[in-house]
Amino acid sequence: MPIEQLQPDLKLAAALFDSLSRTTRHGRGIVRDSYGAGEQAAHDIMHAAAGRIGLDVSIDAIGNLMMTLPGRDRDAPRIMIGSHLDSVPQGGNYDGAAGVVAGLSVLSALKQAGTQPPCDITVMGIRAEESAWFDIAYLGSGGAFGLLDPACLSIARSDNGRSLEATLIERGFDPQTIRERRPLLDAARIRAYLELHIEQGPSLVAEDLPAAVVTGIRGCKRFRNARCVGRYGHSGAVNRPQRHDAVAATVALLHHLETVWLEQERAGADLVITSGEFYTDPAMHGPSKIAGETHFVIDVRSVSGATMQTVAAAAREAAARIGEEYRVAFDLGATSDSPPAVMDERLRAALRRQLARPFEMASGAGHDAAVFAKMGIPTGMIFVRNDHGSHNPDEAMTLADFGVATRALLGLLLNFPLS
Amino acid sequence: MPIEQLQPDLKLAAALFDSLSRTTRHGRGIVRDSYGAGEQAAHDIMHAAAGRIGLDVSIDAIGNLMMTLPGRDRDAPRIMIGSHLDSVPQGGNYDGAAGVVAGLSVLSALKQAGTQPPCDITVMGIRAEESAWFDIAYLGSGGAFGLLDPACLSIARSDNGRSLEATLIERGFDPQTIRERRPLLDAARIRAYLELHIEQGPSLVAEDLPAAVVTGIRGCKRFRNARCVGRYGHSGAVNRPQRHDAVAATVALLHHLETVWLEQERAGADLVITSGEFYTDPAMHGPSKIAGETHFVIDVRSVSGATMQTVAAAAREAAARIGEEYRVAFDLGATSDSPPAVMDERLRAALRRQLARPFEMASGAGHDAAVFAKMGIPTGMIFVRNDHGSHNPDEAMTLADFGVATRALLGLLLNFPLS
Repeated sequence: MPIEQLQPDLKLAAALFDSLSRTTRHGRGIVRDSYGAGEQAAHDIMHAAAGRIGLDVSIDAIGNLMMTLPGRDRDAPRIMIGSHLDSVPQGGNYDGAAGVVAGLSVLSALKQAGTQPPCDITVMGIRAEESAWFDIAYLGSGGAFGLLDPACLSIARSDNGRSLEATLIERGFDPQTIRERRPLLDAARIRAYLELHIEQGPSLVAEDLPAAVVTGIRGCKRFRNARCVGRYGHSGAVNRPQRHDAVAATVALLHHLETVWLEQERAGADLVITSGEFYTDPAMHGPSKIAGETHFVIDVRSVSGATMQTVAAAAREAAARIGEEYRVAFDLGATSDSPPAVMDERLRAALRRQLARPFEMASGAGHDAAVFAKMGIPTGMIFVRNDHGSHNPDEAMTLADFGVATRALLGLLLNFPLS
Repeated sequence: MPIEQLQPDLKLAAALFDSLSRTTRHGRGIVRDSYGAGEQAAHDIMHAAAGRIGLDVSIDAIGNLMMTLPGRDRDAPRIMIGSHLDSVPQGGNYDGAAGVVAGLSVLSALKQAGTQPPCDITVMGIRAEESAWFDIAYLGSGGAFGLLDPACLSIARSDNGRSLEATLIERGFDPQTIRERRPLLDAARIRAYLELHIEQGPSLVAEDLPAAVVTGIRGCKRFRNARCVGRYGHSGAVNRPQRHDAVAATVALLHHLETVWLEQERAGADLVITSGEFYTDPAMHGPSKIAGETHFVIDVRSVSGATMQTVAAAAREAAARIGEEYRVAFDLGATSDSPPAVMDERLRAALRRQLARPFEMASGAGHDAAVFAKMGIPTGMIFVRNDHGSHNPDEAMTLADFGVATRALLGLLLNFPLS
């Protein structure tokens, strides 16, 4: 068969997804706890598969699994395909793992065809991407580049309270690497990083498309602990001019932010604004009381840092103005920020060429790809259609859609665009 | 001392307020839970004081406390002075209790002076006026007139989930009275009902006046358990057209109701609209999630029933329209309604004559007086200046202002206007 017609090993993929589901399902959902038994089981499954394919396998000091098809020039910078193998509690079978399975399906096909690529291609099974267990994202990829703040070693796991340090030691890994910020990967020796991931929103279902090329990963600017302080009062006995109504003021602020969002959207900006937590104080509120306080979140995301800046500034300006108008005090607090990550233009173009119906979209959620992009490594991502969102047991990716996206990865490798 | 110069027993009043505060304060606020330990403690304090004054004391089948100074003609229709002894959670010391203390201060003065009034005067310590505990107002006064829908017996108390029926039985009272709608008071045998209450808004503070005569009581039309159901999603990964954002939709609804309010205000209508409870589900919400559900209250008050009807209709219309626009489902539920009540003209005039600086105003909050007025009993109310509103720990009534209003009550009794 001409190499251009090579297909990813979907029989292997199906077997791996099945094995993952059988091994790491607890009740309705998947539990692959970061640095716990569930994640380890997923690593063991991939490790064994890599052995059967005939890849070189190694494990780095913090447990990342490196599965390599050697290239003709072993000294040339390598291409990496990766994703994480952990899941949120009661997650689905595909968030993370699909990217590793895709990498192995591609290397299995190349190996079976006897193709030796010009450079090494390494599939990386990354540790602990989800922040659900240790309240920090990108432990595996961040740690591999020596990017972690050593203070993270004392973070307690959300379920059993054990520190990251104790957990690493228990698994036979080396916390010293993190303490010394020692890089385990050299960005200069990585030619490109590619990640396949299920889409975590409904866009591809709505567009009726199996896959999309990712333009960038939205950054996040979040007012995590915003507050409005007014004054409690009787709902019938205080007329409008004398009110200090925290709910009315917060409603006015959030309504204003929606108009800002619509304006930005009309101007072509990429943007989502969400207030996913909003509550009056259950110990103080009442059906016949004007609310004296609200707590809420404003979560702003965009592939453009400038757009997020604009919205945050608009929020602060509106909070001051509306606070005065409603005789309340807003305290939006500081924002927690993660910058957007831009995907490599040439990899985007090359991936688009691999799709029968090319479609591009931003990633709203964070991915390990953001860490590689931050390191200056040319990075590309492809999304697979997935119904019901992610981080829940109902993730629904079909093997056919997975095949389309994985074939695009394989096609990209066979026509690699970077000189 | 000539009877015209008789003064209410403010020493007793001060002692009773002090005792109430010491006994029913929990943390910063007052907790006199309806048919609970806090309310019972207040009843016990009043019962003991009535005994010391030498009043006839009885307790009706649903726990209302009747403290009577016998008149010369025991068969003549009696005059009642009353208010409630329960409070909202974390309320203040004066909302409700001040009216009962005022009644006892007046009867104590009459008793000490050896004055026997022409008819019985009964101070009524009324049960469960606040709807914070059983989601129904006027349990005590409504029940005393056999007005309650027996279905109310199955209402669960908001904090412990126990039904009204079980709670009544636990306290030794008789739910059968409510089931049979049996009246415990005969409206034809009540010559007048008088209630002193702290003002629950800031008008008297603004007017620099100690007391006001009440013209009428705003009715209330309340969506107590309104809900919006959308769908949870990733805050970054779901774009606007695919969202089912319950917070965004609820914000849009409440913002719309504010514009309705402003229109009504411009047209000269008496109206207040309040959403004092608003919350996402703490077990499900999160800073990076679109909220799939909100719970909220819409409390509408006016002296005009027609105005409240208009606003409720506008709320339902907007919920349908905005629900469609935001791809969510609003369930506003039924309203709980209390109609506006008008105070007796002659009692208003007589009370005005008792004030050095006569001032009249509407009551924004509901009061047991509304139930007595509804029964066709001539009803009068007097407000006492109170800073910081009511239903909160910071209620601030001075004993001097209380004295002015209570003296007016006493003066009214000594110059009773009804033939």
